Amino acid sequence: MQNIRIEKTTCPKEKPGNDNPLTFGTIFTDHMFEMDYEVGKGWYDPRVVPYHKLEMEPSCMVFHYGQEMFEGLKAYKTEDERVLLFRPDKNIERANRSNSRLCIPEIPEDVFLDALKAVVNVDQDWIPTKPGTSLYIRPFVIATDPFLGVRPSYTYKFMIILSPVGAYYASGLNPVKIWIEDEYVRAVKGGIGEAKTGGNYVASLASQVKAHDEGYSQVLWLDGVHRKYIEEVGAMNIFFKINGVVVTPDLNGSILPGVTRNSVISLCKEWGIPVEERQISVDEIVKAGKNGTMEECFGTGTAAVISPVGELRFGDDRMPIGGGKIGELTQKFYDTITGIQLGEISGPEGWIVEVK
Amino acid sequence: MQNIRIEKTTCPKEKPGNDNPLTFGTIFTDHMFEMDYEVGKGWYDPRVVPYHKLEMEPSCMVFHYGQEMFEGLKAYKTEDERVLLFRPDKNIERANRSNSRLCIPEIPEDVFLDALKAVVNVDQDWIPTKPGTSLYIRPFVIATDPFLGVRPSYTYKFMIILSPVGAYYASGLNPVKIWIEDEYVRAVKGGIGEAKTGGNYVASLASQVKAHDEGYSQVLWLDGVHRKYIEEVGAMNIFFKINGVVVTPDLNGSILPGVTRNSVISLCKEWGIPVEERQISVDEIVKAGKNGTMEECFGTGTAAVISPVGELRFGDDRMPIGGGKIGELTQKFYDTITGIQLGEISGPEGWIVEVK
Repeated sequence: MQNIRIEKTTCPKEKPGNDNPLTFGTIFTDHMFEMDYEVGKGWYDPRVVPYHKLEMEPSCMVFHYGQEMFEGLKAYKTEDERVLLFRPDKNIERANRSNSRLCIPEIPEDVFLDALKAVVNVDQDWIPTKPGTSLYIRPFVIATDPFLGVRPSYTYKFMIILSPVGAYYASGLNPVKIWIEDEYVRAVKGGIGEAKTGGNYVASLASQVKAHDEGYSQVLWLDGVHRKYIEEVGAMNIFFKINGVVVTPDLNGSILPGVTRNSVISLCKEWGIPVEERQISVDEIVKAGKNGTMEECFGTGTAAVISPVGELRFGDDRMPIGGGKIGELTQKFYDTITGIQLGEISGPEGWIVEVK
Repeated sequence: MQNIRIEKTTCPKEKPGNDNPLTFGTIFTDHMFEMDYEVGKGWYDPRVVPYHKLEMEPSCMVFHYGQEMFEGLKAYKTEDERVLLFRPDKNIERANRSNSRLCIPEIPEDVFLDALKAVVNVDQDWIPTKPGTSLYIRPFVIATDPFLGVRPSYTYKFMIILSPVGAYYASGLNPVKIWIEDEYVRAVKGGIGEAKTGGNYVASLASQVKAHDEGYSQVLWLDGVHRKYIEEVGAMNIFFKINGVVVTPDLNGSILPGVTRNSVISLCKEWGIPVEERQISVDEIVKAGKNGTMEECFGTGTAAVISPVGELRFGDDRMPIGGGKIGELTQKFYDTITGIQLGEISGPEGWIVEVK
């Protein structure tokens, strides 16, 4: 593997000012990382280059057969100007598990980490520093063979693009309302639900549109076999605090193994809070929502970090949670994880990787 | 809706000669159809233009969230040089059903049909005429918003590209061997299995690679809930002739409603052959394969038209069918449908649309 080649832009873009609040995923930085793959040659020519449009054949397999994988993580700048990544090793591991399921060649872990560091380093002046902002990092792979026919592609492109972002939900850290879906299904065991790939997201849109129309910002999925067990929110994993115990669905083969999910479970164990990864039926949730034992509910994901849930809706049952306020433990997870991400709190060993 | 603008190429490509056999989906013609969509504006600027690369932002939603739809149909040239499409109305209907499930705006049916005719007409000299060849037509839509975040795109591009093709399977009309999959799942009711979209195809790759390694050319899927009922082959629907009755799985919500499937059922009814669309368990298939009542088995799809199946494999059970030969009814379906497609046999009313 050769070193990463760096080609800097000659016409830098204007950076967003501090006056207007940042939205999510609309502004991109001056540079991107790119690396190509060919069967027989492997991954080659890793490079940081000016952010640019892609020239693609209309027959490229990614447009037809959905062979695509993505990841999401964030970079933060500390008060003393250090640049930090949060648990990039977990994203790299998961990317390669996704790749394996999608028949995309694995990316060497050291190359992946070097690529993340290189492109973030070049564009570190783009990292916003206002509270609640960060630099969102989007690594992704697409199949590029110009071929119509169903087989794994022989060529791929791996890219990393960067976007300075504010809160994922326009509502910020205010509690979101979530619709429990019983018509559409996101994924099923044996399928691609564990992989971070487009097919799982397009499957979620129809339900999301329906939920939005009803005034709900996200959808909570049930399993595809029994239509009975809680899965995930699509953009987030889900946690409940019921009777003092933190519970979340176990990694059963059809939900995404979230990095923030894993971090919350680790913190529970460190703090001595009982935490269970297990099958959770929607009946249990409705019951806990109605009899007052549902103390808190929140989503976890890289984009929103921790997102308090203020209402769950299942059929005609509406379950308000926390009286419109953020739960105490939910707030503590948010403060602790963002504190670790910003270098203000020292987290477990290895959670923070500095870009130098 | 304005008329379709036509811009012809000034540097036509060399057409494939008649000497080398055509493969599938590797050569593209001189022109393509293109039309854009914006929320509030609708579909606009329909045009036939020289075949060209697309300039795409790396943040385009199609690369990340899989919002893409495709169709497949074929054009044929008759001995007296007429250009025929086979049941394009069925593809247009299905495209809009897929679009609806994927939150892609519908394409007006008349515009879609005009677009097919216009681009095929401009490139009609590309339609190959040797037996078993045709011009494969690939309409597809991709989401083009440069945005990272999960929601339906506000902008789309609809394209039609054309490829002169030979047989889909390298083996031609020789019987294929099919692996019945019991580990991976393609789709589940409530998901996107009914829609023609990338996510269903990428989900199939890992199983297909496994089957290829075992010497099988395609995978037959079981349902995702019970892991017990026959679904489809991914590139084809599946038919069995058992004890004189033609049976195929019913359209249960997780399999693709194939145009060739529909045509075979229509022909059965016309010919007075008993045909059943119903739930079929893999146990029934294994039993029929072993006790000699499985008379024929074949796949149906636009790419391969009719594809005889010579062996089914489920776990350790191998079920040879037809002694390596094409079944009599299978051959009759192939001859009749390709005869209708080539204008040599007159088919049911409306199956053939001439491009003028």
